[in-house]
Amino acid sequence: MKAIRVLHLCFLCLLVSAILLKSADCHSWKKKLPKPCKNLVLYFHDIIYNGKNAENATSALVAAPEGANLTIMTGNNHFGNLAVFDDPITLDNNLHSPPVGRAQGFYFYDMKNTFSAWLGFTFVLNSTDHKGTITFNGADPILTKYRDISVVGGTGDFLMARGIATISTDSYEGEVYFRLRVNITLYECY
Amino acid sequence: MKAIRVLHLCFLCLLVSAILLKSADCHSWKKKLPKPCKNLVLYFHDIIYNGKNAENATSALVAAPEGANLTIMTGNNHFGNLAVFDDPITLDNNLHSPPVGRAQGFYFYDMKNTFSAWLGFTFVLNSTDHKGTITFNGADPILTKYRDISVVGGTGDFLMARGIATISTDSYEGEVYFRLRVNITLYECY
Amino acid sequence: MKAIRVLHLCFLCLLVSAILLKSADCHSWKKKLPKPCKNLVLYFHDIIYNGKNAENATSALVAAPEGANLTIMTGNNHFGNLAVFDDPITLDNNLHSPPVGRAQGFYFYDMKNTFSAWLGFTFVLNSTDHKGTITFNGADPILTKYRDISVVGGTGDFLMARGIATISTDSYEGEVYFRLRVNITLYECY
Repeated sequence: MKAIRVLHLCFLCLLVSAILLKSADCHSWKKKLPKPCKNLVLYFHDIIYNGKNAENATSALVAAPEGANLTIMTGNNHFGNLAVFDDPITLDNNLHSPPVGRAQGFYFYDMKNTFSAWLGFTFVLNSTDHKGTITFNGADPILTKYRDISVVGGTGDFLMARGIATISTDSYEGEVYFRLRVNITLYECY
Repeated sequence: MKAIRVLHLCFLCLLVSAILLKSADCHSWKKKLPKPCKNLVLYFHDIIYNGKNAENATSALVAAPEGANLTIMTGNNHFGNLAVFDDPITLDNNLHSPPVGRAQGFYFYDMKNTFSAWLGFTFVLNSTDHKGTITFNGADPILTKYRDISVVGGTGDFLMARGIATISTDSYEGEVYFRLRVNITLYECY
Repeated sequence: MKAIRVLHLCFLCLLVSAILLKSADCHSWKKKLPKPCKNLVLYFHDIIYNGKNAENATSALVAAPEGANLTIMTGNNHFGNLAVFDDPITLDNNLHSPPVGRAQGFYFYDMKNTFSAWLGFTFVLNSTDHKGTITFNGADPILTKYRDISVVGGTGDFLMARGIATISTDSYEGEVYFRLRVNITLYECY
């Protein structure tokens, strides 16, 4: 009699365990957003080559639509201009702060009736705090104050990083300089 | 005696629980494909600038190989042509349906002996049903009826989206217009 | 009395199970790196068009900065040159081995003071061993012996692949040919 009761209780144990397991299933329909595992705020600085600043420029137009040239941004909100860049990354909004890495990649302007860009780039970080890369892809509706792009991968300290980056234009000077503030939120860290 | 038997049974409980746990492990060698958590079918429409349609064009060549220009697609299956685009997205195959967002990005033709492209773009969705972005990357062997590209990230309603998109050419008119049907299957939703 | 002791023991069972479950949680702050689930070593071969080798070339410059042309790489470490490619993939380091697929995508040089590139490309594999695609993105500091880029997605046999690829320059001949060894480590396989 006692043994049977014990068995019943144990079955109950298993049942409860199974239900708990179910709720921990990695493959459920919709997953609860995990807590961010890493947050970084970084700035990068883009100085666009304009035919006169070869020394300081950190980016250059390499493609443009028909009728345009590679030293003057196109009208039509720069539609069709494609630039490659190698920009310094800093911890604060000062271009002259010691860089903690380089932002390398490309952007192009893709709308005729407003300012809008598309970005593909990698943060190559090499400081005492962080060694590794984070790669980003996404549309950048420049005139929106905060816009989210996707973190699509990472290496080193950021191996297989996933998450988003919230970008805001921290400053710009005509068509020669802009500074982006990048607030990176990662949800998977190894 | 009874107590010992109870302990044995409880050990059995733990053992079974442990085995169940093992099978729910997120880090197992090969994971079971989860059920899709979201499926979307959308169309986008690309009108290529050809020197005469500046008003209507939604994309433009911005790069081409040596000897080519930016208003006529190259021979050799357009090898080397790179276009940036900002295309309307619709729920059906009608160019004039109300757009639910914009497809923004670039493509280029990368094969000399057949039609083949590579795509990097973002769906920027802004409708009552969906707000957010999905970003895609991948090779597009255009002449294949159905070809899969990768979903590499997302934001907003599609935060950290993962999955694939099956693309098919729904229509094309010479070198001026094409319409892609995009069947998006996401396996991770938050 | 006995029954109460049994209940206590069962509670203990549940407690231990719960703790075990906690450790298997997919959403924990920092995840343990899973064991690699797939490893591939492949080579791809890039023959750059230089104005004379149209027959053999597998890549072509399609964009360059102001003042440069599309048949001669720029000085300044090729800064600003953007090439699209469709390269054969082989299992060993022999250009003439039977290809197991094509590497399709683009690269551009993004630094003025050293050799550095950024890559976006897809391995389109079509052999008896592997059918599917793997897509890569990332910065490529060419002069470093081993450099990691991100796997950002996959299709077919590599559905939703995640991981990294360690690239090394296996050989190069001036500005006409280079061969990359790509050691792909995937941590998520379905």
